[in-house]
Amino acid sequence: MTPRSTAQNAELALLLEVAGTPKPGNVDRERDFEDLRFEHFLAGAVGARPGLELAAEGERVGHAFERAVAGMAEQSAGNTQFGALLVLTPLVAVASEGDLTPESADRVVRATTVADAADFYRAFEHVDVAVDEPPEGLEPLDVRRGSDAIPALEERGLTLFDVMARSADADGIAAEWVGEFERVFDAGERILVDDGPVPDRASRLFVELLAEEVDTFVVTRNDRETAEEVQRRAQAVLDGEENATELAEELVAQDINPGTTADLVAGALFVALERGLVV
Amino acid sequence: MTPRSTAQNAELALLLEVAGTPKPGNVDRERDFEDLRFEHFLAGAVGARPGLELAAEGERVGHAFERAVAGMAEQSAGNTQFGALLVLTPLVAVASEGDLTPESADRVVRATTVADAADFYRAFEHVDVAVDEPPEGLEPLDVRRGSDAIPALEERGLTLFDVMARSADADGIAAEWVGEFERVFDAGERILVDDGPVPDRASRLFVELLAEEVDTFVVTRNDRETAEEVQRRAQAVLDGEENATELAEELVAQDINPGTTADLVAGALFVALERGLVV
Repeated sequence: MTPRSTAQNAELALLLEVAGTPKPGNVDRERDFEDLRFEHFLAGAVGARPGLELAAEGERVGHAFERAVAGMAEQSAGNTQFGALLVLTPLVAVASEGDLTPESADRVVRATTVADAADFYRAFEHVDVAVDEPPEGLEPLDVRRGSDAIPALEERGLTLFDVMARSADADGIAAEWVGEFERVFDAGERILVDDGPVPDRASRLFVELLAEEVDTFVVTRNDRETAEEVQRRAQAVLDGEENATELAEELVAQDINPGTTADLVAGALFVALERGLVV
Repeated sequence: MTPRSTAQNAELALLLEVAGTPKPGNVDRERDFEDLRFEHFLAGAVGARPGLELAAEGERVGHAFERAVAGMAEQSAGNTQFGALLVLTPLVAVASEGDLTPESADRVVRATTVADAADFYRAFEHVDVAVDEPPEGLEPLDVRRGSDAIPALEERGLTLFDVMARSADADGIAAEWVGEFERVFDAGERILVDDGPVPDRASRLFVELLAEEVDTFVVTRNDRETAEEVQRRAQAVLDGEENATELAEELVAQDINPGTTADLVAGALFVALERGLVV
């Protein structure tokens, strides 16, 4: 066990994630986007902590998440780690009960309610998050409507888990919610068995995850072809055919941002910290 | 006013300080020492927050400081920002009262007691901090004795302010304590009137402060001649005769660490954040 609280470990996971370099296509210790910089991630992580503390205290997952996002958004660059907070909030909830397992995480997310779903929609009012157009017929549930969509949610009786289940095919974070956080827990173990400075482990893990599955944030912001090309390039780094730092420079220059993969790394770092990763 | 709490601003100041690059001779966003790395500063800042919160809640300055140091020390590299916390703790106390002024800071540090001094000595048990040999006759008050020195403190009735006053000639942080935090407040204003990314402002301020006065931590760890040479080199950077990044590489390679100047920058960042610096 670490001497840090669960919420402290979650905040530290956010910070270690952004410190990991190179993480091709993401802000990292050595790279900024023009208007989304390292300092915004520092402020975002510090700001998110009160919401993470609510999750640790047993507050509803949706409400804790909405508060974490509200705090994260208290910097001038908008969204920094929305997806990471969506991974972390339920994990903090179960870790604070001393039971950070896939089964418990699954139990917590399946226990979410319509009120949690409403909080999730409210969270979109704090920041602009790149999302897909809703499928035909689901316009009333477009997350970009924020709290205006809440009556539609309530009418249909959708819980936050239901909302995630509807996005699981298109969103790698939602897929974790409905899949017992399998990639996150597995990746946390990989961080633990790796060695060397923690940001280096985060960087290596990032490239591995990027090579394993297409990044859904790239699919959303760019397109599937771009996401598949990024996946191939990440595999080429693993195969020693490409250089991770050069790929990082190139993706940042092209504004290609595999943010979902970074969010999964943040979750993995949290799992590892809770399981004894020494910093 | 910022939406962040006072303790959050203090933590963010610690993080922004270490992110500022180049800061010749210090860990920064681009440079590590071999066994004192960026990740340790991230964990140290996260760990310090509960102590900073105590200061914001009106807890005795000494006790809040000792708790902040204990939290900071919960990572594997030892001391990261001991001096910065010694600057921040009284400033957090007065800022939380809505009165972050030199006069109020002076009032708070002059109101410290023997109990605060005892806490200060206890803080040295959490981490190894490079300090000078005590003057002849003052061996019983050597801070490296930790709590073993407390009876001597009590016998002499020394408050924490008294302890700082005895070190003010040799230690740039103690000099702030007895001098109304003049350099810190002035530097905070300089950050506010500067422009561009905050870590860049921190870097520029660092070089300016380094050129203005010898860094007492370098005097302690190395010697006065080295500290004066570092001061000259910093002035050469300001004069455009040297490159800050090259100086940073050189000082890190030589294990010359102007840590006191970095601590002052952390204090300045806090003042600036409290006074409306936008991140």
